[in-house]
This record gives sequence, C-alpha cells and structure tokens, in this order.
Amino acid sequence: MKKIDVVVVGGSAAGITASLTAKIHYPEKEVLLIRKEKKVLIPCGIPYIFGTVGSPEKNLIPDAILEKNGIQVLIDEVKSVDRDKKELSTASGEKIGYDRLILATGSVPAVPPIPGIDKENIFVAKKDVDYLQRFLETLKEIQDLVIVGGGFIGVEFADECRKNPKLNVSIIEMLPHCLMLSGFDEDFCSGAEGILSQNGVKVLTNERVESFTGDKKVTGVKLASGKELKADAVLVAIGVRPNIQLAKEAGLEMGATGAIKVNNHMRTSDPNIFACGDCTEKKSFFTGEPARTLLASVATLEARVAGCNLFKAKRENPGVIGVFSTRIGDTSFASAGLSARLAKQSGYEVVVGEAVAPDRHPGGMPEMKETKMRLTFNKDTGVLLGGQVMGGWGVGELINVVGACILHRMTANDIAQFQMGTHPALTASPIAYQLVSAAENAMKQMG
Amino acid sequence: MKKIDVVVVGGSAAGITASLTAKIHYPEKEVLLIRKEKKVLIPCGIPYIFGTVGSPEKNLIPDAILEKNGIQVLIDEVKSVDRDKKELSTASGEKIGYDRLILATGSVPAVPPIPGIDKENIFVAKKDVDYLQRFLETLKEIQDLVIVGGGFIGVEFADECRKNPKLNVSIIEMLPHCLMLSGFDEDFCSGAEGILSQNGVKVLTNERVESFTGDKKVTGVKLASGKELKADAVLVAIGVRPNIQLAKEAGLEMGATGAIKVNNHMRTSDPNIFACGDCTEKKSFFTGEPARTLLASVATLEARVAGCNLFKAKRENPGVIGVFSTRIGDTSFASAGLSARLAKQSGYEVVVGEAVAPDRHPGGMPEMKETKMRLTFNKDTGVLLGGQVMGGWGVGELINVVGACILHRMTANDIAQFQMGTHPALTASPIAYQLVSAAENAMKQMG
Repeated sequence: MKKIDVVVVGGSAAGITASLTAKIHYPEKEVLLIRKEKKVLIPCGIPYIFGTVGSPEKNLIPDAILEKNGIQVLIDEVKSVDRDKKELSTASGEKIGYDRLILATGSVPAVPPIPGIDKENIFVAKKDVDYLQRFLETLKEIQDLVIVGGGFIGVEFADECRKNPKLNVSIIEMLPHCLMLSGFDEDFCSGAEGILSQNGVKVLTNERVESFTGDKKVTGVKLASGKELKADAVLVAIGVRPNIQLAKEAGLEMGATGAIKVNNHMRTSDPNIFACGDCTEKKSFFTGEPARTLLASVATLEARVAGCNLFKAKRENPGVIGVFSTRIGDTSFASAGLSARLAKQSGYEVVVGEAVAPDRHPGGMPEMKETKMRLTFNKDTGVLLGGQVMGGWGVGELINVVGACILHRMTANDIAQFQMGTHPALTASPIAYQLVSAAENAMKQMG
Repeated sequence: MKKIDVVVVGGSAAGITASLTAKIHYPEKEVLLIRKEKKVLIPCGIPYIFGTVGSPEKNLIPDAILEKNGIQVLIDEVKSVDRDKKELSTASGEKIGYDRLILATGSVPAVPPIPGIDKENIFVAKKDVDYLQRFLETLKEIQDLVIVGGGFIGVEFADECRKNPKLNVSIIEMLPHCLMLSGFDEDFCSGAEGILSQNGVKVLTNERVESFTGDKKVTGVKLASGKELKADAVLVAIGVRPNIQLAKEAGLEMGATGAIKVNNHMRTSDPNIFACGDCTEKKSFFTGEPARTLLASVATLEARVAGCNLFKAKRENPGVIGVFSTRIGDTSFASAGLSARLAKQSGYEVVVGEAVAPDRHPGGMPEMKETKMRLTFNKDTGVLLGGQVMGGWGVGELINVVGACILHRMTANDIAQFQMGTHPALTASPIAYQLVSAAENAMKQMG
C-alpha cells in the first residue's frame, strides 16, 4: 500500500486550492488529489455554458495548474476512510494511506420531493459535463423552460437561456423576491427582477410548485396558487446540500446544518482530517452561528486555511462574510455581508447610507453606468455590517473593497476617509465615489 | 460686510468636497465657495478632452451638486486674507468675513525655464476651458505634437492624441521610464511604453529638452543628446506646483516641499484656517516624510478631513498611501503605495509576490484580459507596502482593494485569507484571484 503525506478528496475549487496551499506551505510533502470526475467544471461558470460560453467543454478547470505545482492526481472514487489505519479505499480497489486528509467533497443539487420530479427533461445544475451537454441539447429543441428557484443560480441560468430567442423562460420563486438570500434588500432584488422581465423572462414570486405534469416527459408545472405553466423542460435550482456521505460513514462529527463540523482551523473531529468547501459547516463572521453561505470563493478561503494548517496551526477562519457578485442583463449586482433586512433580523439596530453616481467621470465616458451603493452600519458602534451595489463592470471588484472594510470592522467614519484611486475611464469621480459618499451619508443619521 | 461661517477658496475637487463635507458635519453653518472659474473642469478628465470626450465643455463638474446641498457659490478671486480680522478681500472689491476658512487653491502646471518656452503653440495642462479649447483647435491643424514629460498626464495625453491618425505624437521623458513616479516598477513602466509604441507614440526616455526652436511659433525640440524633433505644437507636462500665493501673503507657514503646512487635522499654522488638496503639503503614510502625491483622490480625502474638523477635531489624516489608476490603449494600469524600487529606497527589505490570471473565468468569457498583480511586502513584518496591477477593466477597483489592505497594514498571511467575491463575467476565478495568489507567492519566500 502506498502512503501519501497529504491526500485531498475532491477536485473542484476547494480541493484544488487546498492542494495548492498545502504545496506552498509544505513543499517537502507529497500531495495527492483524488476525484471522480475526468474533467472538472468551473462551478460558477455552469450557467454561462447555456449562453455566453456555449458548451461544457469550454468551462473546464485545466489540470495544468495541479501538474505545474507537483500535485498528483488520481481519477477514482474514495469509498471509505479507515481513520484508525489512516487509510482510504477507492472504487477501483486501491488502498491509500495518508498522514493528513482533506475532505473537499462539495455539494450536490437539492432535489425536492415534489410529485412528478422524476419525469424526463427535469434537470438540476449538476457538475457533470455529459449531463449538462444533454441539458444543453434539450434546450435547443424546446420552447418553454421553467426554472424552479430564483436564487443566483436560477437567475443566472434564466438570464443566459433567454439569450436564445426561441426559448420562453420563467422563474418560480417561493420568497417575495429573487436573490433575497444573496445579501440584497428588496429594492435591489426588484432591480434584478425588472431587468429579467425587460429581457423577456417571466418572474413569478411568492409561488410554490405543487407538481410537475406530463406523462414520461414533463409538460407543465402546477403551482400552489392554482396557476399552471407550460414546460418542455425544467431546471430545479433550489439550492445544494453538502456531500457528506464519506465523512459520515467515517464517523466524523456533523454540525447543526448537517455539514461536516470543523473548528476555526478547518480541522474536523479527527485531528488528522480537515474539511473545506461546500461539504463543511460555515459560521457567520457576524454572529458566529452556523451559516449556509455556499460560494466557491468561500470554499477557496476555507481551503487556504485548511491547507496551511495541516502540520502547524497558522491561520484562523474568522467566519464567513459572504461576498457575492453577478451580472444580469447589462447590470452588475453584488453584495457583501448583511443586507439591512438581515442585519435587523440578526438583532442589530442599523443605519443605512446610500450613494448613486456614474461609474465614469465625466459621465460622457464610454460605457458609463449609474452605480448605486448601500452600506449598512451598526448604529451603536458605527461598524460596517454589509454593502450592496448595482451598476457597471467595476462592481465585481468594488464589492471586494466593501468586503475588506467589513473584514477590518471599519466604521462609517473610517470609510468616509478611505483612500481610493479614481480614473475617468475606470471609476466614479473622487468627489462622488460611492463607498465614501454612502459612508458620509450614513454619518448624517448617526449625529 | 457680510460674514459667513465657512468660506472655501477654490472650486475644484478639494474645494467642492470640503464644502460638501462641512455641510454634512455642520448642517447649521453657512458655507460659501469662492472660485475664479465660471466653469470648473474635471481635472482628471482633461487628457480625455483630446480624444474620447472631445471637448472641454463635456468635461465639466456641474454646479448642481453644490446648489443641491445648500452651498453658496461666488465667482470671484480672493486677493488677500486679513487673519486678524478674519476677512477676505476679492478682486471685485468685496470683503467677506469668515469664522473658518479652507484654502483649496490647487496647483498650476510647472513651466520649466527652457530656452524658447514662450513660443506660440507651447501648451500646458491648464485647468482653463478657453485655453484647452485653443489647444484642441491647434491640434486639429498640425501634424507633429511633442509631449515633454512622461508622467501620467503626459502619457494619458499621448494615448488620447494618438487616436487622431493625422497626428504624430512623441513623449520625451528625463527618467529611464515613463510613469516611474506613479508607483510602478520598471517592467510595469515598460508594459505601458510598449502599448504606447504599438499605438504609434514615439517614446524617448533618458532624454532632456535643451531648447524649443522656431521663430514666433515652435517648430522643433532640441534634446541634450543632440537629437532634434519636429514639433508643430508642444505640451509641457512635467508636473505641477502648489498654488500658495494667497496663503504665503497671508503669512501662513509653508512646509518642506513649499506647499502649505498642515497638521494631521489639515489645520494650518492659523487655527481658523484649514487647507487641503494640491496646495497643501502631504506626508507619506509609510515614512511620515513630506510627499508630493498630487492626485484628485488624495485632495478629496484631505477635504473630507478638513471639512469634518472645522469646529471639532474628528478625523486624522494618516498620510498619503497614493492610489493611482489609468488606462493606456486597451490595458488598465494601477498602483497603490510603494513600488518595490521605492520601498527599497525608503529602507525596507522587501519580498515581492506576483500573480497573473485571466480577469474572467472561464478565460473564454467576453473581454477577458490577463491581469498581473505584484505585491510588495516588508520582509521583516510581512506587512503590505504596495501593489501594482495591469490588465482589464476591473483593475480600477481592484487597486482599491489593495489600498484597503495597505491602510489596514495587512500582512501577506492576512491577504492570503482575504474573503473576496468572484464571478465569471466580472473577476478572476477564486482559485487564481490575483490578490490572494500574489500574497501566497510572497509567503513562499518568507519561509
């Protein structure tokens, strides 16, 4: 039996990043990454296969980054972990010893027990090249696509699929708005819904699916409200559940959300086993309570903590802020931390500051887009709790500035003194820079 | 004689922002902004008048922002300050009393005493609508433009003017590279020079102007190396000098660089007078020594400190980090803090970490651009001293993430755990996010 210093199970964002981090911090150790998939999809890129990118094959993470960094790769499935022997067994019958093990087994799309869910042409956002290729081909032949779930996956799929003019796309969302669990207040959600509607997507909120109709193939979706939608295909995008089977069978402790329990070092209940990514329980940066923020960027942070701590504790995970961005139609949306609504729900008294300004100066510069920012502060301490932005291309990095301010528990007064760089072709004017103006506007209300 | 609570002298970025800030923090006070100019140019937008924007009239700061916030505006020139009486005299003969005065008198382009400097068709980047209109009209009639000075103003002018295919544009720079004083190491400077050259701009470095030739009008530029360039027009863009005449005549103390001396509260040697912007001495965030970082974004920070502290000290200026961004051809360039070269010159032992990655994921997403980041750390403490980025559109805000990290004295280990948001259409992949990867790469060398 071969024995490897560090074995990583899982080949997506968390597994790759954990392997790379282990190799950076312990270059003398052998690192082996084991994964089931021949080809690894870029998880965040999956919706874009259905429009902008055009095929699953164009949305792959190249293995070159692993090879270049001296990481061994084994395509196989780990079936069990013998923790006493520190040994894995794989589907192909191999036994592999480890000194340290990292579980990065990810998540699988949640499939709700709705009557008719097993009918043909009902799909989920599965990280599987062949499966997605079949979904893509199906979409070429049909007319009516119903997307169940208006979270960011559902919304991104809708916005890509509507680019095919032959396709009628609808979204069904249980909550009062799409994207409500992605850190946005209602007006930002409405902004996104408005753009989807303008682009021909039918958005139905406060609606729940009762059943899928049709014989073998799906032909319709019945809603609890009594409405019925025609459907030649359905995408169910109601979220994911952590893939914990291997960990559970190995007897590791699970957390309150049903994901693998870890401490701040990303260590599981077994000191030789670490976990990171979607399979792992998160805790909120703000409350310390269990959180369900499943994002690739969160997974890679956890992987960087886990990979670094394998043989020596060097990093602590401070908890998940949750920094998210997307693009709908011609508008970028992003959030970090708590929306005003979520902050209040968490028990904070809040002050909100807003600013709207062109993201170029003068406003006549090409591709100018009005960009709106809302910052939510703890009223008592002035500390930043969250930010939301909608506007131009720069929003994807602008939200990372907000994230940095949250991470450092900056106050409105600190942010009002932020030292930003600005440029006519790249940002808002320094007089109107949204981050700073929103903080100043919040200060007006703090007295 | 009328008496106003707060009088601000100067109507550009610093003056406007100081007025707005005063009104936010002291809404009960009357604020009057006095400026010479009927129309105020967006200072950073001036080079773009000569290409993208097309006219000075399209590059103005609207007065609406002042009116909307209840700030009075007087178009007049302040000729003297009587500090004992707390009273100003203007060119039109008015006398205005003040309780607090903010000097935001800006800077004027430096004009070097080179033989021939007074010839016709030799221009500077003057903040004057009519003057720039004349320069613009001159450029329409000529063939050879020589730009003296390869700092960011010179480079931006060159990149805009070369968009006119009839114009031959040359830059003459004294130093070994263009942009060397904007926080870039030599390879980043060479990157910028390469793009300029590819786009038809002739870049001459390590060259000094000896004289301008011609009779009444300029016809050529003689260099110390013996070279001679044909020139129908010249732009001299070798920097600016603080406009301190009013302050000097009022007997205020000047600093080591010849600008108005202020403390961390932006208060001058007279407790009732504050100063901010280009007319004011800066100090380095790193060394505390006098600095010459004249940027509109720095001016607005100072204005936010000055305006807020007028009647009560609430904010301290921690010193200038210097965050800068620009766009040359199809590539954005940005820097924050110290380049590796400048850090070494300041006495630091440094470790440099780099990362290059596409700014979209997968790389096939539209408008993908390879984006390179270099981070410079203090080797002994691991603290971030500076960052440089070149690449796509997101660079303008990405450098502000770097700025936030510098401001909070984050270490390489902190930054390697940065919680960023990522998205296929907006940023690099979370596995390869440049900020985090550059920090991890620096850690390799820190052991």
